[in-house]
Amino acid sequence: MQAEIITIGDEILIGQIVDTNSAYIGKALNTIGVSVYQITSIQDDKQHILKALAEAEANADIIIITGGLGPTKDDITKHTVAEYFNDTLVRNTAVTENIERLWRDFVKVPLQQVNLDQALIPSRAKVLMNMVGSAPGMWLEKGQKVFISMPGVPFEMKALMEQEVLPRLKLKFKRPYILHKTLLTYGRGESTIAATIETWENELPDFIKLAYLPSLGKVRLRLSARGFDEQAITVEVEKQIQAVLPLLEDIFVGFEEEGDLAVLIGRQLVKANKTLAVAESCTGGKLAETFTEHSGASAFFNGGVITYATQSKIDVLGVSKAIIKEHSVVSAQVAEAMAQKCLQLFKSDYAIATTGNAGPTKGDSEAEIGTVYIAIAIKDKVFSEKFALGNNRTRVVNKAVNKALELLQKEIFKN
Amino acid sequence: MQAEIITIGDEILIGQIVDTNSAYIGKALNTIGVSVYQITSIQDDKQHILKALAEAEANADIIIITGGLGPTKDDITKHTVAEYFNDTLVRNTAVTENIERLWRDFVKVPLQQVNLDQALIPSRAKVLMNMVGSAPGMWLEKGQKVFISMPGVPFEMKALMEQEVLPRLKLKFKRPYILHKTLLTYGRGESTIAATIETWENELPDFIKLAYLPSLGKVRLRLSARGFDEQAITVEVEKQIQAVLPLLEDIFVGFEEEGDLAVLIGRQLVKANKTLAVAESCTGGKLAETFTEHSGASAFFNGGVITYATQSKIDVLGVSKAIIKEHSVVSAQVAEAMAQKCLQLFKSDYAIATTGNAGPTKGDSEAEIGTVYIAIAIKDKVFSEKFALGNNRTRVVNKAVNKALELLQKEIFKN
Repeated sequence: MQAEIITIGDEILIGQIVDTNSAYIGKALNTIGVSVYQITSIQDDKQHILKALAEAEANADIIIITGGLGPTKDDITKHTVAEYFNDTLVRNTAVTENIERLWRDFVKVPLQQVNLDQALIPSRAKVLMNMVGSAPGMWLEKGQKVFISMPGVPFEMKALMEQEVLPRLKLKFKRPYILHKTLLTYGRGESTIAATIETWENELPDFIKLAYLPSLGKVRLRLSARGFDEQAITVEVEKQIQAVLPLLEDIFVGFEEEGDLAVLIGRQLVKANKTLAVAESCTGGKLAETFTEHSGASAFFNGGVITYATQSKIDVLGVSKAIIKEHSVVSAQVAEAMAQKCLQLFKSDYAIATTGNAGPTKGDSEAEIGTVYIAIAIKDKVFSEKFALGNNRTRVVNKAVNKALELLQKEIFKN
Repeated sequence: MQAEIITIGDEILIGQIVDTNSAYIGKALNTIGVSVYQITSIQDDKQHILKALAEAEANADIIIITGGLGPTKDDITKHTVAEYFNDTLVRNTAVTENIERLWRDFVKVPLQQVNLDQALIPSRAKVLMNMVGSAPGMWLEKGQKVFISMPGVPFEMKALMEQEVLPRLKLKFKRPYILHKTLLTYGRGESTIAATIETWENELPDFIKLAYLPSLGKVRLRLSARGFDEQAITVEVEKQIQAVLPLLEDIFVGFEEEGDLAVLIGRQLVKANKTLAVAESCTGGKLAETFTEHSGASAFFNGGVITYATQSKIDVLGVSKAIIKEHSVVSAQVAEAMAQKCLQLFKSDYAIATTGNAGPTKGDSEAEIGTVYIAIAIKDKVFSEKFALGNNRTRVVNKAVNKALELLQKEIFKN
């Protein structure tokens, strides 16, 4: 069972937006055993859309199209899909009512004709009602193949995938079982890991594939298995994981399917009834956000300070001026003082602090660009580590966040 | 001059990573007048790669391939490109030396044979030296067409694009001039804007296209013009912008090409020699990060507090317990108190505070999910606004950040 995803919109091709929809759709289809053969991003251009539809029809059983369904003139997907199916657009009463409801309940400005015209859909299409937006999804069949068109607005597309598309695909197609298990590792590089587990990797059965996904201080090892015998697959994948874990030693922190490292740490803290606070300088709020982006953070995350300016480390955290003067603001001593003061201020059980120079220019310190100190404080104890994280600002910040998570994980899990 | 981008990697198709490379490449090609015809994401599969290369060769003049060049067994791009060109792999001395240098200077673990084998490249390929990673870029020509293969690691790919690919493409191809100008607007919806500027839009000359890009409280209006007469294009686009600006009134905040709203605000603050601090509850660090992710933030951003737990609003910011008790933690009064206390604590000229309920469950307040209060404090003045931002956690946070920027922009620019 193969799918092709076609995302439509000039803004994707000129790089004005990153296409996150196809990643979401790919992941969702995978969970129901549908593989994505190809993702194709094309312009809002009739001939190109027609060509992409024909090619996708030749490649795949399920063709999922997003984008180009807005009310404005540059959106031509619906008209083009109708043309591909030799069909005409007709006004759909249920969609009209849905649009009127949305405008009555949520939209403060008058309903325009262009909005009402979003109820025009190809006569042969089954409507997939969009409860959170005015552009409906559409389901069209051609022989054994299914064409699904959805709006490109991510949360509208996601609601349609969950409520309409996935349930209907499950009913229509017999699908293999696909199992992904992804081992999260921190602290060792891709080729070192590959050398360590080479023998194990060579002996993996054919139906299990291994992929290395390295990024900024972490490497994810993804095992993918597929077949029709769900139980045999589950057992074999589990067996292989038990065989590889001892080889990975302490670099393994958990399975990505159970959440990223911030989630795993949060879960562990809640279990132990402990709390966390952060004091950030160079990471500028990113570390806090790594925890708060997940729901449930309030159960363990007391809060944090972003003492970006040197003076704010003194005024807000109460780090002593003398320590900063003696050791400079990017130093182990300042990182440790920040962590300790943060622990007191937020009355938390753990505090983590970052101070460094993310670049591109040097700030209130002579430290090399990329130098970051990370400190962890718990009751009666504080320690720090120094890192050299390169000279690309965004990467320095993201690596520092990953290193902070790695240190915190080691500290929490050993207790 | 058309390009096709092929991104290779199972991790893209199963949605484990979002393909950000093609957006970057699309944007970069656009700046030199090369349009992207299509972006195609495919698996690490030989037959599929060969098919995609042949299709791209039929569609485009420039074929850019990323991914599948890692040292591990799942990476097969290089072998497949060699096969497509009926070529063999030969060991390249310069690349070998580069790998040895990287390992000597940066990598702490021993150099493996798999790493050295990254110096094997097709004999007909010109090497694009990767100074920051072990997989080189490759440039191959076939008639008038160019095939470029780069590693999928974003910062390696970006360095190669800047230092090698763009300069070489500029030399090889005569390209039209492409101009994008994107008007950032906050506070009004897509169809309302469309109705307001309909007459203007209908009279745009053929070589200028308009696109509406709505997201979470902002709408971007992108004008795209192309042609060989750079001056005529520049003049006409400027004329059209001057014609539409009065229609947009105060919803226009700036041009995206000059930076996002956080950058525009930062620039204005620096110009006025003013500083900013933030006090975040429901936005959890995201607002601070919106400012600190850009270099130069230290010139105006003093810092912030994330008072996520109610107690930390009292302990860290000094918000009075009585106010919280009387009005609840999600209230105008608490937002305003947070902003005022933040202003004092960070000795800043502006302070902005958020308190709300991002969901999915209610926290220390009975406020509806999606209710967010945003307050701004300046010397001798504080005010706040209440927003209902829906019930999707991530969207609530991102909308709140956008609303905060919108309020702050209005306050700063009117002074």
